[in-house]
Amino acid sequence: MEGDAGDPGEKRGGVRTWKLTLEYDGSRYSGWQEQKNARTIQGEIRKAAEDFFGVQVEIQGAGRTDAGVHATAQVAHLRAPTLKKLHPDAILHQLNDRLPADIAVLSVEEVSPRFHARHDAATRTYAYRISTRKRAFEKRYVWWVKEKLDVPAMARAAQMLVGRHDFRCFRAGDPSRPDESTIVEVSSALVELDKDLILFRIEASHFLWRMVRRLVGVLVKLGKGEISMEDYQKLLEARCDPRLNVAAWTAPASGLFLERVYYPDPSDRQRRRR
Amino acid sequence: MEGDAGDPGEKRGGVRTWKLTLEYDGSRYSGWQEQKNARTIQGEIRKAAEDFFGVQVEIQGAGRTDAGVHATAQVAHLRAPTLKKLHPDAILHQLNDRLPADIAVLSVEEVSPRFHARHDAATRTYAYRISTRKRAFEKRYVWWVKEKLDVPAMARAAQMLVGRHDFRCFRAGDPSRPDESTIVEVSSALVELDKDLILFRIEASHFLWRMVRRLVGVLVKLGKGEISMEDYQKLLEARCDPRLNVAAWTAPASGLFLERVYYPDPSDRQRRRR
Repeated sequence: MEGDAGDPGEKRGGVRTWKLTLEYDGSRYSGWQEQKNARTIQGEIRKAAEDFFGVQVEIQGAGRTDAGVHATAQVAHLRAPTLKKLHPDAILHQLNDRLPADIAVLSVEEVSPRFHARHDAATRTYAYRISTRKRAFEKRYVWWVKEKLDVPAMARAAQMLVGRHDFRCFRAGDPSRPDESTIVEVSSALVELDKDLILFRIEASHFLWRMVRRLVGVLVKLGKGEISMEDYQKLLEARCDPRLNVAAWTAPASGLFLERVYYPDPSDRQRRRR
Repeated sequence: MEGDAGDPGEKRGGVRTWKLTLEYDGSRYSGWQEQKNARTIQGEIRKAAEDFFGVQVEIQGAGRTDAGVHATAQVAHLRAPTLKKLHPDAILHQLNDRLPADIAVLSVEEVSPRFHARHDAATRTYAYRISTRKRAFEKRYVWWVKEKLDVPAMARAAQMLVGRHDFRCFRAGDPSRPDESTIVEVSSALVELDKDLILFRIEASHFLWRMVRRLVGVLVKLGKGEISMEDYQKLLEARCDPRLNVAAWTAPASGLFLERVYYPDPSDRQRRRR
């Protein structure tokens, strides 16, 4: 379903659309996207919403997080045919009571029936958490790297990601999108150290499959001194090299969080469409 | 084992003592204290240490946390007969590699053979976390209270705990300590609001069994307006009332953390002993 033409709100009366902001611990799930015979975040939210509304609803998320990946602020839209004017807080409480403990709705607001969580999102921000120590409380939310890392080198390398690059050396082939372009515009990228936590944060219009986890894997290799800054630059210039086995270095899903989805002001969006 | 007389360091040569600072997620454990046929924190640490040292060791903790209660900085001493001078960081890494993922050693330092984690501790600080919203990541680390709470009233009530009080109305009978005094000197107590988290923090020389969880249960009752400030004052003046069923209001273990153990400067301790 592409474009705005499929929005039920435009075709039928009595269909309302809400923007949901969601937090979830992805550990137990096969990712966001609904699949047969697998427990997914989208599936759980659909189940809760259909139980509450008593009819079929449409749920679309801004980012398709992979198995084991978390979100602190995923955005989804919920479209349901209903004649009742519902208070957004009532929907929030009803959904939270029906959802498992590791999925929480943080906020609900009614939006235009034209709103589409995925198509309207201008950028997504992902954060990756590397711990330099064992953590009793956060094992499922970090990648614990025991070796010493050169954090300033990693920070310099992260800075170089900003701008327009061909990320073909960092992508996993996505069978559902064979013709996807590998050019990505990165609006910000940084590595910062917060005591015993190394945080990598990247904002871009879109991301290729496994791109963030492979970037982190390569940054950690660089931090350990196992590849050089020249190797890193080659990858960033799309000069892939079988010696640099990026796929094998993919960072574990546990440290990855979808942290923010940015929607430009509606009036800006109208302007862009003209 | 009471007093310093039992310290092996004083009797035998070649016995070394280390002070361990520990973090643990208590969810899977039957508390700190070793018991037959139960998984305990003390038991796991003993197992890891005995595997590393290859001999029997002594492990004693500053606070006996209950089943399901967590610690961000429990302190324990480890006494082991060894002739080798070991680097504390080597012990830290060796123990962490042997301990389950939900127990982490944060630091190790070699201390005087007279050091006793429990007897030498001057105060313990516990923190209790109440969440006013559903939390996907922290279900096991908070008590989610859905009803609206009067936080300023709870803060005023917490402030009244400071000083010397008879906490008989808040204690659960501890069969292992039938003659224990119910008088406790509270050095600080407060309730603070951090966005959607209500934090209760209390420091005292010692705590009665379940005292913190019962205090929190009563504070929440007060916050909901289900008991009055007069009721609360009665309990604090040891005028227990069967109408105020404190035991039934005990807050769940999940929100409770042993947060700090304070040891006075060794020179102060010497001074006190004189």
